[in-house]
Amino acid sequence: MATVKLLTDAEIDTIAAAKAVFDDIRATRKSDFVNNFWRGLANDPASLQRVWAQVKAVMVTPGAIDPLTKEMIYIGVSTANGCGYCIHSHTAAARAKGMSDAQHGELTDIIGLAGQTNHMVTAMQIPVDPEFDVRS
Amino acid sequence: MATVKLLTDAEIDTIAAAKAVFDDIRATRKSDFVNNFWRGLANDPASLQRVWAQVKAVMVTPGAIDPLTKEMIYIGVSTANGCGYCIHSHTAAARAKGMSDAQHGELTDIIGLAGQTNHMVTAMQIPVDPEFDVRS
Amino acid sequence: MATVKLLTDAEIDTIAAAKAVFDDIRATRKSDFVNNFWRGLANDPASLQRVWAQVKAVMVTPGAIDPLTKEMIYIGVSTANGCGYCIHSHTAAARAKGMSDAQHGELTDIIGLAGQTNHMVTAMQIPVDPEFDVRS
Amino acid sequence: MATVKLLTDAEIDTIAAAKAVFDDIRATRKSDFVNNFWRGLANDPASLQRVWAQVKAVMVTPGAIDPLTKEMIYIGVSTANGCGYCIHSHTAAARAKGMSDAQHGELTDIIGLAGQTNHMVTAMQIPVDPEFDVRS
Amino acid sequence: MATVKLLTDAEIDTIAAAKAVFDDIRATRKSDFVNNFWRGLANDPASLQRVWAQVKAVMVTPGAIDPLTKEMIYIGVSTANGCGYCIHSHTAAARAKGMSDAQHGELTDIIGLAGQTNHMVTAMQIPVDPEFDVRS
Amino acid sequence: MATVKLLTDAEIDTIAAAKAVFDDIRATRKSDFVNNFWRGLANDPASLQRVWAQVKAVMVTPGAIDPLTKEMIYIGVSTANGCGYCIHSHTAAARAKGMSDAQHGELTDIIGLAGQTNHMVTAMQIPVDPEFDVRS
Repeated sequence: MATVKLLTDAEIDTIAAAKAVFDDIRATRKSDFVNNFWRGLANDPASLQRVWAQVKAVMVTPGAIDPLTKEMIYIGVSTANGCGYCIHSHTAAARAKGMSDAQHGELTDIIGLAGQTNHMVTAMQIPVDPEFDVRS
Repeated sequence: MATVKLLTDAEIDTIAAAKAVFDDIRATRKSDFVNNFWRGLANDPASLQRVWAQVKAVMVTPGAIDPLTKEMIYIGVSTANGCGYCIHSHTAAARAKGMSDAQHGELTDIIGLAGQTNHMVTAMQIPVDPEFDVRS
Repeated sequence: MATVKLLTDAEIDTIAAAKAVFDDIRATRKSDFVNNFWRGLANDPASLQRVWAQVKAVMVTPGAIDPLTKEMIYIGVSTANGCGYCIHSHTAAARAKGMSDAQHGELTDIIGLAGQTNHMVTAMQIPVDPEFDVRS
Repeated sequence: MATVKLLTDAEIDTIAAAKAVFDDIRATRKSDFVNNFWRGLANDPASLQRVWAQVKAVMVTPGAIDPLTKEMIYIGVSTANGCGYCIHSHTAAARAKGMSDAQHGELTDIIGLAGQTNHMVTAMQIPVDPEFDVRS
Repeated sequence: MATVKLLTDAEIDTIAAAKAVFDDIRATRKSDFVNNFWRGLANDPASLQRVWAQVKAVMVTPGAIDPLTKEMIYIGVSTANGCGYCIHSHTAAARAKGMSDAQHGELTDIIGLAGQTNHMVTAMQIPVDPEFDVRS
Repeated sequence: MATVKLLTDAEIDTIAAAKAVFDDIRATRKSDFVNNFWRGLANDPASLQRVWAQVKAVMVTPGAIDPLTKEMIYIGVSTANGCGYCIHSHTAAARAKGMSDAQHGELTDIIGLAGQTNHMVTAMQIPVDPEFDVRS
């Protein structure tokens, strides 16, 4: 039960701006499958266009961080934000990009350890060491 | 202003269990600098020992994820949890492990994009696609 | 599966303090429907009374912010807090108060953008500009 | 730098509704000190009254949970929410109610462990065991 | 202390892509002041461009939600995410767009009430009422 | 639907390191029931070992905070972190350790009140009173 309608392919076909984005998602990912996030976002075609353009620029365009690392960072942030959908979709994406079971286990460990030390640091209200000022 | 005392080296020297961990931190990191987190945690030497043992196992011991990637995942989680201290300490650690300005810029982009889509997915309460069940 | 029993109308009828609140919820909202939140809270009638009194004072009593805007702010906070139930209940309330599909689309965009810039600001640990001190 | 003015005692004295609450805070706590939270909230005297009434009902009135335990729960929630001010004020309150250094150390450990397992459970999206349905 | 350098106007002038965005920010806002967020983001000019384009589309372009309401929703999300910088910058923006003290007081009340009920609903794990499915 | 396989007893029996931990969980808790969290974590036996060792040290070993209070703090943190699984498992644990309905009601009230004041303090960006520096 979503708070918006998840648009079907038939409905997308009737909205030119949304159809263009869906075509680009399929071409970019070389797959016919378009997941529910985009079907919900398609209710607002201008937003669909903006968000997809960003996902392409940040996650798809080759850069200084490799694609699998990007997915693992995404999973880390999504876990701390408690977004179950995002954890599922990006874990699937990470596995499709080669994440092994060992890497998934270590990813879970890192996320857990960060969760633990984040909480302990905050509970103790530790002040930042001046040595961390690496910009100077 | 922390909620605990940050122990000085002179104070650590009087607590055998804490001293042993500080010695190991220095030996492991090949540096004399021990940051404030450990100085706060040292008020509870058993906890200091447990947390450091975990940090060594998860972050220091070589595994299936490379050390720089581990730091970037840590930064992602710490950002979503709003732990300023942790962001500073792990950004410094990532830079020490070779993170370039370009990688830091992309890391910030990924964290921002995840923050955005996490919020949009949650606002729309998007249901998980059965296709994401990659374990089967 | 809740961690408390959701009290039925028959059970509420046997608890005078809870019954009085349920009667006031129905009279205030001009509807017979009382949603699950109140049925869970009714296990602690004094708390039910306090929380409902606040909801009336903050959300129902006319003030300087119009009722639909109040609901959209509520949805924004509830999304960042990851409360699916609250998102559903307040999205329904916002629609009942006239929120259009276009407004819901823009609300989702604002929530997403805030999520993104919140994360980027935090990752960069941007210091507050003195110009923002608008109280002086 | 707050987003509201922190009212001084001289300013409070000119707002009857706020003055009455401040008098009650002082009488209840048997202390002349009123902390900044109430001085910010006093800009909206009706809200000041509502929030203080709740704090009295939940935190001051004797109940089924002892006062120190209440403070430690408060610190746990405030830590996970990243509210530095609240961590400071309730750690001071807990110490005033007798929290020992050993208890503070354990509290920090519990908060850290919960942070860790919360993150690991969420990363793995573990389904709830039916055995946890203790209401039946 | 930020994790990136906050670029001065002199430095921005040497980066054509960043300069163009800063010019547009100044023209759009009809003000010479450009706040620190953009000065940090300018280290990654492509990201600066993308984020500013979104801010313009979502927050500046007239839509179905009025500008002050947009700012108040932004403050609500930023508060739940604990982004102090964002709370300051958007509270200043909201005041510049006419937010009165009474509206700010009510906004704080709504944010607090949402925080409270979000937490209570989550603690009780209240299931969503089927009546909230307003799409059907 | 989890992102990892939940290992059955038959599968655990084939992994010596995991079997040893499961045996210790059963012996420590004096119960044959092992909940899903450990069955997911068992995919990474070294992590299973580390996390269980911590849970034993922090939650099982007698200390300065009594067992029921520990569970209530855990529930508070888990609620603010939005971990439904953890709320269910620790509410069941708290009830098994004697938490009454009255205590559960008060726990929910404290969690809600903390959520409320955390949000209000953050929205107003209240500065910490120097009086809270209890270490000096």
